[in-house]
Amino acid sequence: MTLQTSHQPIGIFDSGIGGLTVMKEIVRCLPKQSIVYLGDTARVPYGEKSPEAVTRFSIENGIFLVDQNVKLLVIACNTASCFALEKLQRLFKIPVVGVIEPAVSEAVHVTKNKKFGILGTKGTVRSGSYQREIEKRIPGAKVVSVACPLFVPFIEEGWVDHPALDIIVKDYLLPLKQENVDTVLLGCTHYPMLANLIRKELGPTVTVLDSAGAAARLVAEMLEKENGAQSVQTGAEYQFFVSDDPEKFRMLGQKFLGKPIQKVGVL
Amino acid sequence: MTLQTSHQPIGIFDSGIGGLTVMKEIVRCLPKQSIVYLGDTARVPYGEKSPEAVTRFSIENGIFLVDQNVKLLVIACNTASCFALEKLQRLFKIPVVGVIEPAVSEAVHVTKNKKFGILGTKGTVRSGSYQREIEKRIPGAKVVSVACPLFVPFIEEGWVDHPALDIIVKDYLLPLKQENVDTVLLGCTHYPMLANLIRKELGPTVTVLDSAGAAARLVAEMLEKENGAQSVQTGAEYQFFVSDDPEKFRMLGQKFLGKPIQKVGVL
Repeated sequence: MTLQTSHQPIGIFDSGIGGLTVMKEIVRCLPKQSIVYLGDTARVPYGEKSPEAVTRFSIENGIFLVDQNVKLLVIACNTASCFALEKLQRLFKIPVVGVIEPAVSEAVHVTKNKKFGILGTKGTVRSGSYQREIEKRIPGAKVVSVACPLFVPFIEEGWVDHPALDIIVKDYLLPLKQENVDTVLLGCTHYPMLANLIRKELGPTVTVLDSAGAAARLVAEMLEKENGAQSVQTGAEYQFFVSDDPEKFRMLGQKFLGKPIQKVGVL
Repeated sequence: MTLQTSHQPIGIFDSGIGGLTVMKEIVRCLPKQSIVYLGDTARVPYGEKSPEAVTRFSIENGIFLVDQNVKLLVIACNTASCFALEKLQRLFKIPVVGVIEPAVSEAVHVTKNKKFGILGTKGTVRSGSYQREIEKRIPGAKVVSVACPLFVPFIEEGWVDHPALDIIVKDYLLPLKQENVDTVLLGCTHYPMLANLIRKELGPTVTVLDSAGAAARLVAEMLEKENGAQSVQTGAEYQFFVSDDPEKFRMLGQKFLGKPIQKVGVL
């Protein structure tokens, strides 16, 4: 595991647009670091697809990014992190970072009652990855996982204030409230867009964490430890690629990234 | 355009599971006809993807079915019918049937006030295909199209009685009520699952039609005209293929098809 020369970009992939919330955090932690982002918009979403399909897509995405000469690969998609992280770590020479482990590492320091809530796609919940990572660190922890397949369609519609969403949020969060969890992990890159709504429903005693910040801090730590990337890099360049419709990605992506996107290439 | 020998199966493809509502109607019209069904579950949904991507996927699906020796190809997916029908008709030697034109042919005989409502995916609405087909037959007809991207996620969740869906149905149907349309076309293979809810909201003066029945009647007419398929075929065989997770398709597919599915192959 070597991070090679510091002027190389890092690679980030996601099933689509949501991983830009992870990129946003990485840019915040490493403002001088160049980044190549790939959104697999032709095959989005990954959340309900099989482990085999998600792994195959992830390998293809990884190969594309390795071909762009990246020095480190970030799997920004939670579902792909659950199913494909180990495979990609075995396969590629460069280090590969997923979004599950960094988030769990932070969450276990936050909890007081050792009761966790996980919100994610069907694939993420079914994989049991969050639960396993938590139990590794806190044996006997209580983990309540809820698949929330309607969150992404509402977010992509921009209906985050829609009254129908309030009803759905209440439905999805009910099991977490019943179990009195004190720490909730947003296990999907889209969900930070609903963080305020979720915090309001759960109340002030519950800490709501997303995986983007934790993953970004881990990446920054790895790069700085290896070769002081921050001090060497000058003038970060950002490149974006998608497997379908660059314009739709460019328009919606700016909301997720929080800054303008000029140009998007198509695979 | 030849339908060749009558013992050959017909091919049906869809982005996923929804096209089974079309297959169900074809089975009803042609109970002795063998069928090969392909659901592109690895790349589902098509509804918000680009015309270029949907066309590329449709060509690949069509080639797979032609390789299964089908004598006629049905594009059961509305979005793919909008974007790829003409291309597939130019490309393949066998006849290719989409779901838009047959539905419109029936709808124009139903309307009294020449005001139509179209409910579909973003791709279907953006393509303007329903509107064009209607205007070809009734110049000056009023067509109100509404993209309903939240319907499919609710249906796939099985949340067809959820109170949040009532609010969304009211929102989506409001423009149709305001324009006083008297004929509504369900331009997505999933939407027949919500037909009762939509009929209740629109009231008894509005006719709600889906595209499955009309497409099936057209296919039956074509086959019977060419070589009396019905009388020759004995013991219909049904084959199912998907590009991801056969078991999920098999379980949920039985609801859409209304009969048991034994075996599902993977591409």
